[in-house]
Amino acid sequence: MEKIAVVGAGLAGSLISVFLARRGFKVDVFERRSDMRNIQQSAGRSINLALSTRGIKALKKAGVAEKILKHALPMHGRMMHEVNGELKYQPYGKDGQYINSISRRLLNVELMNLAEDFENVSMYFEHKCLNVDFENTQLTFQTNMGKKTESYSSIIGSDGAFSALRMAMQTSGRFNFSQDYLPHGYKELNIPPKSGQAQMDINSLHIWPRGEFMLIALPNPDNTFTCTLFLPFEGVDGFDNLKGDDEVIRFFQKYFSDAQDLMPNLLDEFKSNPTSNLVTVRCYPWVKEKVALMGDASHAIVPFYGQGMNSSFEDCVILDDMMEKYLPNWDKVFDAYQEERKPNADAIADLALQNFIEMRDLVGDKDFLYQKKIEHRLCSLYPEQFKSQYELVTFSNQPYHEALNKGQHNTELVQKIIKENLEHKIEERDFMESFLAQRDL
Amino acid sequence: MEKIAVVGAGLAGSLISVFLARRGFKVDVFERRSDMRNIQQSAGRSINLALSTRGIKALKKAGVAEKILKHALPMHGRMMHEVNGELKYQPYGKDGQYINSISRRLLNVELMNLAEDFENVSMYFEHKCLNVDFENTQLTFQTNMGKKTESYSSIIGSDGAFSALRMAMQTSGRFNFSQDYLPHGYKELNIPPKSGQAQMDINSLHIWPRGEFMLIALPNPDNTFTCTLFLPFEGVDGFDNLKGDDEVIRFFQKYFSDAQDLMPNLLDEFKSNPTSNLVTVRCYPWVKEKVALMGDASHAIVPFYGQGMNSSFEDCVILDDMMEKYLPNWDKVFDAYQEERKPNADAIADLALQNFIEMRDLVGDKDFLYQKKIEHRLCSLYPEQFKSQYELVTFSNQPYHEALNKGQHNTELVQKIIKENLEHKIEERDFMESFLAQRDL
Repeated sequence: MEKIAVVGAGLAGSLISVFLARRGFKVDVFERRSDMRNIQQSAGRSINLALSTRGIKALKKAGVAEKILKHALPMHGRMMHEVNGELKYQPYGKDGQYINSISRRLLNVELMNLAEDFENVSMYFEHKCLNVDFENTQLTFQTNMGKKTESYSSIIGSDGAFSALRMAMQTSGRFNFSQDYLPHGYKELNIPPKSGQAQMDINSLHIWPRGEFMLIALPNPDNTFTCTLFLPFEGVDGFDNLKGDDEVIRFFQKYFSDAQDLMPNLLDEFKSNPTSNLVTVRCYPWVKEKVALMGDASHAIVPFYGQGMNSSFEDCVILDDMMEKYLPNWDKVFDAYQEERKPNADAIADLALQNFIEMRDLVGDKDFLYQKKIEHRLCSLYPEQFKSQYELVTFSNQPYHEALNKGQHNTELVQKIIKENLEHKIEERDFMESFLAQRDL
Repeated sequence: MEKIAVVGAGLAGSLISVFLARRGFKVDVFERRSDMRNIQQSAGRSINLALSTRGIKALKKAGVAEKILKHALPMHGRMMHEVNGELKYQPYGKDGQYINSISRRLLNVELMNLAEDFENVSMYFEHKCLNVDFENTQLTFQTNMGKKTESYSSIIGSDGAFSALRMAMQTSGRFNFSQDYLPHGYKELNIPPKSGQAQMDINSLHIWPRGEFMLIALPNPDNTFTCTLFLPFEGVDGFDNLKGDDEVIRFFQKYFSDAQDLMPNLLDEFKSNPTSNLVTVRCYPWVKEKVALMGDASHAIVPFYGQGMNSSFEDCVILDDMMEKYLPNWDKVFDAYQEERKPNADAIADLALQNFIEMRDLVGDKDFLYQKKIEHRLCSLYPEQFKSQYELVTFSNQPYHEALNKGQHNTELVQKIIKENLEHKIEERDFMESFLAQRDL
């Protein structure tokens, strides 16, 4: 039986192991950390994800969607919290379109269990990758029992944003690579239930947009909310400046007073939870000899479009498609995979950076909201001719780079409608359909 | 006596050691490789550099210019070789302006000798940096006698494009970094003298521009020329396609027949000399705690503007200026240094990439040459009001980012002159002076 190594038992690594197992390979999964199933989660590291169409497609293809989705909570739109506590709601899409809040840890645990259910999958924890011998497709690990070297017919590097496999590629010549940090960091906070009840609407993603920074909250099935505060490190309203209790309290009173009222443990959490970085990683090629990168190892993105996990799961789908097409020729599998995925990974990286500005700043901007309103009307009235970028990214499987391009066209189109005062004609079907058709010329 | 470590005894490392020694510090210089003064140069690695105003200023400030410049050969202009062997000459600047061809190795050896002439400088070879303890300003090296750890008051990382110190910063959080490879590589070749005489003009930099690729040649004092062939790796006219003797010969006959006639050892050299990569490295910050990067470690650039070494030497000047201003406060020294240098390092990286296109492609383009001709007339007639980008980069000490901006303005201005048919007015002083003055509005 052909042996494949998967380095990293995170979300992408666990899911690709399922795909590989279903194809009959002997799969060895190596994880640097201990088995998360045996240890308690460290505080302030819960992290919620928004599972949407692409991710669900991958889970379905792997045959595990049902088992996962029962842990998810639907979010139908954004609930914006203004400084004075006023709420504004924007649906994400049409009726019946929603994204799914799910705990990262729970998702990871489920996927690891599902992978290990296959007889031909073995998982090894506390295995730190020390060396990659690309020529011989060989891995060397540091384990608790000493060093260990194994050979494989192919190796998948799904070892995250600080990938050891990518680092080995980086120093091996002609490997383009960048890591870009935002000036912002993030800190997790928590809104507990009150008398067992959720303190806010549990079917929305809550946003407190404040220009240069923001707070968001995603609901959990236990009626808690996992909140994330995104803030610059430097400046007056920056993490570096919020050291004392008084400063933290004043800051929350000023900007997030309605949220503060729901956070009984704010000060403790603020002090004890870590402040984490936000990085975008791009690289190319993703393949060297018989070693391929996927997920965050090849394209770590910022979390603002809710597509980090979804794009990694889409990597799994495309890699599986290419296995279907080209196996047993791994060179062709990997080449076709990276050529297909690279432009889409770049596009979702750009989209995620753009969406940070949209979420923290523009959702409070009148002109922007007016544009969004027109866009929403076009989406509803002409669902075939006009799809918003958000819809294409979140509720379709169209390649990200096409969604990026269409999004730019949409913006131009809506701005043209406003500039030429055509709002009153939006419901004139004949006029509008020909107007929309122009776009594709 | 305060102890400073310099990691890397290349050009920047050797020169900054001189500056540090002159300020009375105890300087330990660590080099991964053996002492190049004791070993023969490996074939195909000779490399010539073009020393110009910025580099000379640095050497003068360090008090070593005279000793270096006696090994240099002036190059007054570009000599372009067309496919049919026809020659076209472009002066680099005004009369008396020239750049200086010098061997990298010889320059490095001289600078190492000059640094070691100081009693307070010690050089350690075959010291591979294994670890940087930023908090304690401590370095650990692998030496032939085992491991060695030393503490310093400051550390300079001048360990080149693949810097170990930068790598340590890269994995320590919030460090922006990119490495971008060109699709081109390069290979060194050689034109020997004939009966003791140089076979081409020794006061020119020779260029064979061929669109997607090019050959260049720099003169040496021994009447040889060091040639460099820049070629894509892939494609019909790519290195990967030039494997057999026949292919190499046919390729040279087709594109570089006049040069081929002067290269008796072409085939041997082509086969035995390595094919090297071309990388641009950018990063920020350059400083972490009391450790600062400089030269290629902080900004490796492609060689097409002849400014790699000159910009590294300018780093030394700026760092020395900041020491003058802010010592004994190393934090201020390093902060002011990186803030001053970063925009200029980015600018020269961009300029170097742009100049590759100019050298290999545009110098054979009629419109471009016509623009250059007008630019040259403006430079000669209005030397105070109009300075070409090349002049600002090569023959001035104006910050690179200003040269980049002025260059863009110049291009617009010349294009406007051509578009509005104002060429006949170039010599009308009153008209032209007010025309040029508009630019600054």
